[in-house]
Amino acid sequence: MRNFLLLICWLPIAVIADDAPRARDLGIPFDGTPGPLNAITDVSGVTVGHSTVIEDYGNGSAARTGVTAILPRGEDSIMLPVFSGTAVLNGAGEMTGTIWVEASGFLEGPVMITTTQSVGMVFEETIKWRVNHADRDVTGYAWSDPVVAETWGGRLNDEDGFHVRPEHVVEAIETAKSGPLAEGNVGGGTGMVCYQFKCGIGTASRVVATVDGEFTVGVLVQANYGWREILQIAGAPVGREIPVAQVADIRTPMDDEMGSIIVVIATDAPLLPHQLKRVATRAGLGIARVGGMASNGSGDIFIAFSTANPQELRAGTNLSVRMLGNEHLTPVFSGAVLATEEAIVNALVAARTMTGFEGRTIEAIDHEALRAALRKYNRLQGSE
Amino acid sequence: MRNFLLLICWLPIAVIADDAPRARDLGIPFDGTPGPLNAITDVSGVTVGHSTVIEDYGNGSAARTGVTAILPRGEDSIMLPVFSGTAVLNGAGEMTGTIWVEASGFLEGPVMITTTQSVGMVFEETIKWRVNHADRDVTGYAWSDPVVAETWGGRLNDEDGFHVRPEHVVEAIETAKSGPLAEGNVGGGTGMVCYQFKCGIGTASRVVATVDGEFTVGVLVQANYGWREILQIAGAPVGREIPVAQVADIRTPMDDEMGSIIVVIATDAPLLPHQLKRVATRAGLGIARVGGMASNGSGDIFIAFSTANPQELRAGTNLSVRMLGNEHLTPVFSGAVLATEEAIVNALVAARTMTGFEGRTIEAIDHEALRAALRKYNRLQGSE
Amino acid sequence: MRNFLLLICWLPIAVIADDAPRARDLGIPFDGTPGPLNAITDVSGVTVGHSTVIEDYGNGSAARTGVTAILPRGEDSIMLPVFSGTAVLNGAGEMTGTIWVEASGFLEGPVMITTTQSVGMVFEETIKWRVNHADRDVTGYAWSDPVVAETWGGRLNDEDGFHVRPEHVVEAIETAKSGPLAEGNVGGGTGMVCYQFKCGIGTASRVVATVDGEFTVGVLVQANYGWREILQIAGAPVGREIPVAQVADIRTPMDDEMGSIIVVIATDAPLLPHQLKRVATRAGLGIARVGGMASNGSGDIFIAFSTANPQELRAGTNLSVRMLGNEHLTPVFSGAVLATEEAIVNALVAARTMTGFEGRTIEAIDHEALRAALRKYNRLQGSE
Amino acid sequence: MRNFLLLICWLPIAVIADDAPRARDLGIPFDGTPGPLNAITDVSGVTVGHSTVIEDYGNGSAARTGVTAILPRGEDSIMLPVFSGTAVLNGAGEMTGTIWVEASGFLEGPVMITTTQSVGMVFEETIKWRVNHADRDVTGYAWSDPVVAETWGGRLNDEDGFHVRPEHVVEAIETAKSGPLAEGNVGGGTGMVCYQFKCGIGTASRVVATVDGEFTVGVLVQANYGWREILQIAGAPVGREIPVAQVADIRTPMDDEMGSIIVVIATDAPLLPHQLKRVATRAGLGIARVGGMASNGSGDIFIAFSTANPQELRAGTNLSVRMLGNEHLTPVFSGAVLATEEAIVNALVAARTMTGFEGRTIEAIDHEALRAALRKYNRLQGSE
Repeated sequence: MRNFLLLICWLPIAVIADDAPRARDLGIPFDGTPGPLNAITDVSGVTVGHSTVIEDYGNGSAARTGVTAILPRGEDSIMLPVFSGTAVLNGAGEMTGTIWVEASGFLEGPVMITTTQSVGMVFEETIKWRVNHADRDVTGYAWSDPVVAETWGGRLNDEDGFHVRPEHVVEAIETAKSGPLAEGNVGGGTGMVCYQFKCGIGTASRVVATVDGEFTVGVLVQANYGWREILQIAGAPVGREIPVAQVADIRTPMDDEMGSIIVVIATDAPLLPHQLKRVATRAGLGIARVGGMASNGSGDIFIAFSTANPQELRAGTNLSVRMLGNEHLTPVFSGAVLATEEAIVNALVAARTMTGFEGRTIEAIDHEALRAALRKYNRLQGSE
Repeated sequence: MRNFLLLICWLPIAVIADDAPRARDLGIPFDGTPGPLNAITDVSGVTVGHSTVIEDYGNGSAARTGVTAILPRGEDSIMLPVFSGTAVLNGAGEMTGTIWVEASGFLEGPVMITTTQSVGMVFEETIKWRVNHADRDVTGYAWSDPVVAETWGGRLNDEDGFHVRPEHVVEAIETAKSGPLAEGNVGGGTGMVCYQFKCGIGTASRVVATVDGEFTVGVLVQANYGWREILQIAGAPVGREIPVAQVADIRTPMDDEMGSIIVVIATDAPLLPHQLKRVATRAGLGIARVGGMASNGSGDIFIAFSTANPQELRAGTNLSVRMLGNEHLTPVFSGAVLATEEAIVNALVAARTMTGFEGRTIEAIDHEALRAALRKYNRLQGSE
Repeated sequence: MRNFLLLICWLPIAVIADDAPRARDLGIPFDGTPGPLNAITDVSGVTVGHSTVIEDYGNGSAARTGVTAILPRGEDSIMLPVFSGTAVLNGAGEMTGTIWVEASGFLEGPVMITTTQSVGMVFEETIKWRVNHADRDVTGYAWSDPVVAETWGGRLNDEDGFHVRPEHVVEAIETAKSGPLAEGNVGGGTGMVCYQFKCGIGTASRVVATVDGEFTVGVLVQANYGWREILQIAGAPVGREIPVAQVADIRTPMDDEMGSIIVVIATDAPLLPHQLKRVATRAGLGIARVGGMASNGSGDIFIAFSTANPQELRAGTNLSVRMLGNEHLTPVFSGAVLATEEAIVNALVAARTMTGFEGRTIEAIDHEALRAALRKYNRLQGSE
Repeated sequence: MRNFLLLICWLPIAVIADDAPRARDLGIPFDGTPGPLNAITDVSGVTVGHSTVIEDYGNGSAARTGVTAILPRGEDSIMLPVFSGTAVLNGAGEMTGTIWVEASGFLEGPVMITTTQSVGMVFEETIKWRVNHADRDVTGYAWSDPVVAETWGGRLNDEDGFHVRPEHVVEAIETAKSGPLAEGNVGGGTGMVCYQFKCGIGTASRVVATVDGEFTVGVLVQANYGWREILQIAGAPVGREIPVAQVADIRTPMDDEMGSIIVVIATDAPLLPHQLKRVATRAGLGIARVGGMASNGSGDIFIAFSTANPQELRAGTNLSVRMLGNEHLTPVFSGAVLATEEAIVNALVAARTMTGFEGRTIEAIDHEALRAALRKYNRLQGSE
């Protein structure tokens, strides 16, 4: 009976997501209440676009990369910043633009995510796109310090080929939309690997109740970190249950060092910049729930923003902004932790086995093996 | 056969610890290799002292508090600082002295932990003890900005009675010793509560292998945070398996907000201050492994120090210091995460049911109920 | 006999303090427009109280110390926090409570300033005063992590005598008032020395014009830093024009290291916490205008707060707060720089020659010598 | 024809730059002892290269921009990082790579400085140059997160034309050399303006004495901030003595907001990363000595590095590093303050009047007017 009810609940989600199962569809239990799409786009106004670059050039050279764009206010993001804050768990990575986010309290424009060697290209093209598509803003200028983040896709992508081109940046921005999102091997996440499984982009959301009503916290991750042994899902040590095959071992002596994860947290709760900085910090707790430990070479960098307060707040006069009292923040914090956790697992579950640069193949996690591991630890829903 | 071997391993630990079982003794699995004592005192030179204040004054007024002192270099801590770094996960609490630790890179003197309302007393008496016990140091002055941290013990302790007295500060410092440590309702942890169970002081350690040889990472926590539902141990959702009894519910509407945890991380790895700051940050990942989410009212504040480089480094000349290369830090990070996790569980397991201020009773976690919950999720060692 | 001497000592202070010239009265030019009192109390609602402790105990032992309390909202400060932010130029000092200010964005209660060894006492007594004078606040608790800052008064004050007593803390808080303020050898600044001249408390303000109307920026400093050669006033190198007399040289080899300055910046401009952090940072620029270089041993720690938004912002619902747009912040920043500069010079000008601990005498700056030095560099107003 | 004009334009620059007076040559007094070149290249091993882009495209479109590269260890910078730390006075700007500098304590590769819209190009080309010129380093990887900083050159440069091209990046890196440096309208500073005078690149150095011997502190700035009224040189209010001519007024309503300054501080003192962060912070005090107040729109971003400890410190074993004790840091701090101050004035003095984008002309400071202003305030050396 329970199974039947759950099936009704899950079916639409599965259908929407191009028939690919998401983590919940496999019976993985998560805490908290997701939004309708269980995606960052549950936060009204947020749009996401992917440009996926999969090209083969012969002799093992291959592009397995791309660009993901998150627009806090959709097209209005060009002219209308959002309050924002950032946090760093381990800083072996890049997110440009954070010095200004921290000083101003504003994220101006989109958050762009790509592979390591393409940060410069994406930075430049994002500015050019801005220059070509809008006038100077109310401050008399136009943002020119975009937020561009990266993780290192070099296992599957020929990083030194610099295969992200201007048109990919434009595609990511211009195809950004609300609604259900693709996960796994898409956009900036195309070539990414986590826990030695194929990984990439994942998303999730939580609806949280406060005295000021319900708010949504949505998360999108580009996950590319961790070694197999430490992977835990729903608390179960599944990494050890699905060990890395000797033949397929892709680890190099310093492989642990190259992991990274970018976490983007959106909310419609009316938070001020210093509150959003606290929200961003919670991403680290979500990573830890999947076993992550932030190795020396990991760039674990987070940004949170609020879509509330959609007036011009930089040069306006006699401004008034809505604010959620600190005493009511805890549900937002918990939502950020839990949505980060689920977004990572969604990235793992959605990714597909991929062969790329130098003919290297990274296997996706086997869904049945994962379910078996969870069942062993009594953590598979609908399997009693 | 496995059980027999484990028994040999566990027995000495149990005997040493006053016969009270620690988390491992209950069959809780943890990752990594602990040091001989599985305590912060596995880091050579570190000493710890507790002063426990349990007094009843009638009419429900009661002291359930105390002071814990961690001396990085034992008695030499007076004159010889250690490299140190700090981190804050959520800042609703106090750790004095951190501005100077961050600027100088040095922890000068002990780390003191107590209850919220006694920070001032402990601060003043720690300086007085310093003034009374040693000359000016090599810099021509004497440290006078001690590190004093707190969590709020007001559920069991009459906070506004300010019951920590000067002699308690002296006792904590002067009884500090190496070797096995008391856990649970002792020292600064006397009145503390976590996950709505009685809690307090806990400790653990990890021995980590690097190219420069083995190092020890030891952790001591004063844990006082979290609501029941989120408690997970060894990944199992044990909090939900041992719900808060309706009759005994001790939560107030804002009870979630009052939690805090202080984490002290010691290592003999030769780390520089900026590396120790990164180690301190990892405490948050250990907290997350036990389900912690850092609520708005939680003071989650961490300090890490290295006992390596025991020369005078402030005013000396032509100094040379040992350093572990960044590329070899990951095992130290993992050790800090795992020892923090286990120290928290040790605090929960060691604590005993306590009745205190206003006649309020906080129950300790029932060891058999905990084992049953772990067994349900196939996470009890020696129970196959 | 000693009491008689003390009486003689106090009387002139009181008299002088009423008719005492301030920096502007000497013809020193400053930029910007001060408020009516040229004091932090030009910011409506801010009150300041001093408790000055001048006692002699024979054998050279002497108290030259005290406590200064700044209440952001006067008596309402007990229950109603202000938005706040902090900054550190050099961290060789203490300001308790900053971890919570940074996380919450709120300063709850007063800012207390004293001498180094009395931080613990002032911390404890400020909490006790809070406990004794008000109920729990709207959050269900009461602030218990006060902001207590210090500079080191050991040249004139017997620091290890711990001469600040509970009644001095109460006096500073309870005598706090708006209106003109005493400067120089008062309150926490009683024993302080800057640029090897007697120094102490100083204050100043600026009225700044923005598109949202005029706002006031008020500053109070406790100044205790710097060696003679680097002192510049109105840009003129006056320190070199009034060199330290050989006979009276009070420098020890490490004297440069012991300086510190606490800067408190109040404004009625409606600034959010992240904006106030930026305002606090500007104090360092004001110090540099007087020649300060932030030596290794200097605790240069700053806090800024806004008295705007006087509603309960922690636990309230559907909150709305006023905000000054970033594009209009520059005048507030400039006001903070300029008022800090003048407050330091006011502290120097108001201080009086003092003899204290171990019979040591620190000379005040000679006003005529200062005027002569300024005249030499064509920087004396009204003297052409 | 256009080429001919350009030739005429370039020739005088080269000639002037050789015989051009620097600030000291004009009789401006500065404190402290400079190194032989009074340049960042006084720090042994540091090399600097400029690529200057001055091109006219008709219809007012014009490039007045370029790239400056500072290589901490000359060619060895490719493989051998330096200890480093960063600081932000006001964050309205970009310096990429700082998240990793702060986490790792290392600056890997050069510091690149350019104009705002060219950060992406310089970022990408710096990586490409690295890929093309060296193998993976000892860590198994190659730095790919270069430090690229900017100030906004849009008054004289057609920013949205993105005129920095790949060859300019290569030129800046490959022409880097030790010895005397060009200042003013060169490299990244080509189009910059400060205090409404033509400005650009400036450099200076200080030799400081410590118990461990003499060390050199060298500074290079790209200065582009400030309005006329606040300019002070050697403490004299020279900005008011040389007011902005009404006819030539180049201010727009928000012109104050667009200023920025990048400060690069090199030293051979053996400083650890947390000490270098403190050194970087001092740049703000140097800016304040020239009257700077860090307006809302100013990107005042600083990086300091130490060329000491030239061994491989990332992946090496049993490492030992030299360190200067904290108690001996003050002279290094003072040197950083004073060299920053002089480098800014050198940039002002070296710059030449320039006409650029949209036919706009920015006048250089008139050396005789400057001397007259200094003489008025008795601050001209050799003029008594």
